Amino acid sequence: MKTLDSLALRAEGDRLFVLDQTLLPHEEKWIECREPRDMIQLIQRLAVRGAPLIGVAAALALAQAAEKGASAEALTIAADELREARPTAVNLAAAIDRLKLTLNPFERGRLISEAEAIFIEDVALCEAMADNGASLIADGDQILTHCNTGGLATAGVGTALGAIRRAHEQGKRIHVFVDETRPLLQGARLTAWELSKLGIPHTLICDNMAGALMAQGRVQKVFVGADRIARNGDAANKIGTYGLAVLAHHHGVKFYVVAPQTTFDESCKDGAAIPIEERKAEEVSGRQANQSSAVWNPAFDVTPKKLITAIVSDSRIF
Amino acid sequence: MKTLDSLALRAEGDRLFVLDQTLLPHEEKWIECREPRDMIQLIQRLAVRGAPLIGVAAALALAQAAEKGASAEALTIAADELREARPTAVNLAAAIDRLKLTLNPFERGRLISEAEAIFIEDVALCEAMADNGASLIADGDQILTHCNTGGLATAGVGTALGAIRRAHEQGKRIHVFVDETRPLLQGARLTAWELSKLGIPHTLICDNMAGALMAQGRVQKVFVGADRIARNGDAANKIGTYGLAVLAHHHGVKFYVVAPQTTFDESCKDGAAIPIEERKAEEVSGRQANQSSAVWNPAFDVTPKKLITAIVSDSRIF
Repeated sequence: MKTLDSLALRAEGDRLFVLDQTLLPHEEKWIECREPRDMIQLIQRLAVRGAPLIGVAAALALAQAAEKGASAEALTIAADELREARPTAVNLAAAIDRLKLTLNPFERGRLISEAEAIFIEDVALCEAMADNGASLIADGDQILTHCNTGGLATAGVGTALGAIRRAHEQGKRIHVFVDETRPLLQGARLTAWELSKLGIPHTLICDNMAGALMAQGRVQKVFVGADRIARNGDAANKIGTYGLAVLAHHHGVKFYVVAPQTTFDESCKDGAAIPIEERKAEEVSGRQANQSSAVWNPAFDVTPKKLITAIVSDSRIF
Repeated sequence: MKTLDSLALRAEGDRLFVLDQTLLPHEEKWIECREPRDMIQLIQRLAVRGAPLIGVAAALALAQAAEKGASAEALTIAADELREARPTAVNLAAAIDRLKLTLNPFERGRLISEAEAIFIEDVALCEAMADNGASLIADGDQILTHCNTGGLATAGVGTALGAIRRAHEQGKRIHVFVDETRPLLQGARLTAWELSKLGIPHTLICDNMAGALMAQGRVQKVFVGADRIARNGDAANKIGTYGLAVLAHHHGVKFYVVAPQTTFDESCKDGAAIPIEERKAEEVSGRQANQSSAVWNPAFDVTPKKLITAIVSDSRIF
């Protein structure tokens, strides 16, 4: 493989490394992925996360196996297992399906170059989204974001956070409010860390403070990513996004979803057809909660098209 | 003092004990309060919390000082300090103001008996609210609640959670969804613990899951408490309540605020006049978040009257 390098993913020859995102911001530990099953585990335990990144990472894991000489049969099995690692983000399935086209008939070199292309294209998609999204951000805007949609979630500058970063680079004076994003705190741990590194002014809040913030007129725009966008424009994203969209609607705040073409699923008629992953109770209950209580822990929710001001993609805003 | 006993507060002679609510549900540790300054600390660090309970507890702390022979001057100073321990819940100020009437002219015995009366009356207010609130709950209802409004928050069965408990005792088959209530997890730690003890079916969720739950039609009613209700019906309550009210409004879900007469502040024209306590950043950032990020941590928000289906008080539903 080519040498490929992003904030949370590195490939060099037949070696592949991911930054363990569960340990951020306190520890920057790179983990070596040696085979597709390693990557499945890394994706499932969210060491690698972010809809675009898990697609890119899964593709590179399959390419690594191809580079190490795996047979077409072994690669097909690995591809199917990688594809099932997480159900909601369609980027993963889309990346694997693209590589599967090189398995029958089997073209080892093409599998590897397609995986490299998926990485390189994601960087370009991010650049295009950042430019499109930044065009919607005005000097002085106070922007609320949820989860992490930056360099950690993609191979490039990110989706929603990429647009915010680009606006900052353009000299627009913006302030970002960061939802901590329970239960796994991707906002508090990852987005806040990225914004600090980039020097972008920001304030961390609990998810349940977004309403009070909007009521005070302190949010002009909400920017979020997506894990899958149905044909009708309904968008699945990190749990809590839907509630933010309702709040934004109630307060007349603009609500933007930023996602690359790889997040659109033409085979999904509407949001109801998007599978929503439910994760284990311990993520919510942790050590502090009453341990005998039942828990509901959906990782995503669906925001209907009517609550979305615009979807910002790499090709256009619609 | 009379012997007084509730889930989180006990008085025996001149001894006063509180259950340290910061350690629940894992440890049930009673702490002795020896003087008003102890109680101020206990209230400020949320070992004692809940709008009605902090009023009752502050009253008993002042009565304890009176019983130990404190002068009228010392009691007046202590009363003023207790009154300022936390700014938002009006029950605290109301209880102290009531006791201050016995300080000039000073009637030691009456101060003590008034404090006892505040405890005993709170029990009765809870019973009346529970009956009134339960009348709004139907067999089969799925109810969402926020923060803790039960036996830990009052001297009696609680406010919103008291109504839920009463409905359960009446044999109504209900299911309670418990917002974990960031940043201090009063829902996950305290409400879930109370509901478990009472054998009431319940499910813990993160605050940001309430929208998805309502979108699935799984919530018929929201029951919350209040820390202060303004003359026009605007209600301050734990941060996140306002967002729930907007979500309930959007989904046609009934939204009930349950609070005793001691929570009404006739001197407050509307919600904008209610002081909102901001607490320290560490409550939000904890050990996991990016530590260099700024934090906004309001402990309460204000829900405007127009988003409240009804306020359930001890005397009536309005």
